[in-house]
Amino acid sequence: MRAAMERFETIGIIGAGAWGSALALVAARAGKKAILWGRDAETVASVNAGTGNPRYLPGIAFKEAVSATTDLAEAARANLLLLVTPAQTLRAILRDLAPLVAEGTPVVLCAKGIERATGRLMSEVLAEELPQARPAALSGPSFASDVAKGLPTAVTVASPDGALADAIADGLSTPAFRPYAATDLIGVEIGGALKNVLAIAAGAVAGARLGKSAEAALIARGFAEIRRFSRNRRAEPETLMGLSGLGDLMLTCSSVQSRNYAFGIRIGEGAAVADLLAEGCPLAEGAMTAPVARDLARVEAIDMPITEVVAEIVEGSLALDAAIDRLMRRPLKREEA
Amino acid sequence: MRAAMERFETIGIIGAGAWGSALALVAARAGKKAILWGRDAETVASVNAGTGNPRYLPGIAFKEAVSATTDLAEAARANLLLLVTPAQTLRAILRDLAPLVAEGTPVVLCAKGIERATGRLMSEVLAEELPQARPAALSGPSFASDVAKGLPTAVTVASPDGALADAIADGLSTPAFRPYAATDLIGVEIGGALKNVLAIAAGAVAGARLGKSAEAALIARGFAEIRRFSRNRRAEPETLMGLSGLGDLMLTCSSVQSRNYAFGIRIGEGAAVADLLAEGCPLAEGAMTAPVARDLARVEAIDMPITEVVAEIVEGSLALDAAIDRLMRRPLKREEA
Repeated sequence: MRAAMERFETIGIIGAGAWGSALALVAARAGKKAILWGRDAETVASVNAGTGNPRYLPGIAFKEAVSATTDLAEAARANLLLLVTPAQTLRAILRDLAPLVAEGTPVVLCAKGIERATGRLMSEVLAEELPQARPAALSGPSFASDVAKGLPTAVTVASPDGALADAIADGLSTPAFRPYAATDLIGVEIGGALKNVLAIAAGAVAGARLGKSAEAALIARGFAEIRRFSRNRRAEPETLMGLSGLGDLMLTCSSVQSRNYAFGIRIGEGAAVADLLAEGCPLAEGAMTAPVARDLARVEAIDMPITEVVAEIVEGSLALDAAIDRLMRRPLKREEA
Repeated sequence: MRAAMERFETIGIIGAGAWGSALALVAARAGKKAILWGRDAETVASVNAGTGNPRYLPGIAFKEAVSATTDLAEAARANLLLLVTPAQTLRAILRDLAPLVAEGTPVVLCAKGIERATGRLMSEVLAEELPQARPAALSGPSFASDVAKGLPTAVTVASPDGALADAIADGLSTPAFRPYAATDLIGVEIGGALKNVLAIAAGAVAGARLGKSAEAALIARGFAEIRRFSRNRRAEPETLMGLSGLGDLMLTCSSVQSRNYAFGIRIGEGAAVADLLAEGCPLAEGAMTAPVARDLARVEAIDMPITEVVAEIVEGSLALDAAIDRLMRRPLKREEA
């Protein structure tokens, strides 16, 4: 007899930024009770007053009922948790959640990145800090504003427990938001983290006005780096071909709506990272991920020249002209992964 | 003892459109004698007068010496031939070339598509009409104007004869134009032909304002179709991950400089294909390829839903709304190729 699919009546969304708010709308549209946790009392009040999230999703009305709270315990009681805080703050929020989350609660990682201090993937941080959780990740080509507006979007939901991935995909499914279930959690995480690094490089090529052809070539060569990294971690090669790999890469590297691509464009135009930070430009996640990915690649003896260049640029140790020269003047060889 | 690499002193470029002219410039920059053949006497005269190709590469000066001719025999005598006429006219030009080309001449296929009347790939047409040629193909993310301007570009040069691929790559290499050698000719051809179909679909999603997320999801799902088609033809899976596959797909689906993407945008905005043709909009190559690819997929029992939709749209048998509905409302399932 086949076990009945798990149902999730309440979904707790941890993090009330653009993506968290958009996912709360998805949960509500899917007929769930959506509980959105955020630190910012003003945003929470605005969501509860029915005026949406003007700070992170300006101009988008929340037509569906989303209940927001600043009380982490309230959100943590949900049947399913989506973790949507930035990658570098994941460990801290997990420590806050540890005493509040019931044994066996499914936790869906929605942030993309590698923890800078430790080189850990998000699922590794989750296993360390919230071992009672059943891990999953949600990733794919999805701008928060597209999702919030109800435009068609397809993403991957991965969990080593395939039945759980199916249940989460089913639980978050709406006519416009299509989650595809998968089991290769590590592969999904790696694609999501490393594409941000590549988006900075692609943006830099665009900002330096080297042409769309150069940008596409760089992305194809960069994709080979992500594949090498994934292979070394025993991720399934198929995963990178899908929504969370190729799909997300396409999106991130083709629109100034992507923070990492936009950050790269500024660098390509000649801005120094230090100046960008000084003028209040938030550091894109790929700028965090690049140095740690470069360090991991060195330890694991993986050739990742584009990641290296991005890491050195964000660290301020490589000038743009020298970086372009290094990338473009590599010796001719057979094309291979 | 390793055989010395073949050198090509003269390169004949058959076809004086934008891409042929850009490749003639590349050959000249690589220190070769470039002989550009075109039917249009005015273009040939302009190239020979040093005023470039104002019809196809407006505003781009030809600083390098390119010799143009309307005499096919003159170009056919070169050590290496690049065939840059549109896919649907390849057979006709090959028949003209047949009595003019010496045994063993390397012929590089630069057009992308599938012959509509026969379902043949370009290399299959070449083998039938010019059996004395040694086949190769050049493909990759490369807008003619980027290449003509000398912006950095990387492409794949494939031939079943790896030493020949190496020699052609070497012979066309300049500091800005980087050909990577490969041996999987079929894989390169399939990627080049089918990405045009996908670009029409991506353009239609953009034209219908469904959002960048939907577009990226469509491309990822469409890439799986190309992979299935390639696998069935025993192409190497690696090829599609490279410049001629993923790289070219990225470029074609992300810029209105791509004729196929621009064509798709018009369709997405609501224009009928018949009306586009009536107003003189040239039929994009993908519109030729879609129906024949769909027919081949049916014969070979390959699931290609996006290609089918594009084929029906260009044939006028499927309305845009119904097409979008069909693509977006497919049942949830596990993500796989």
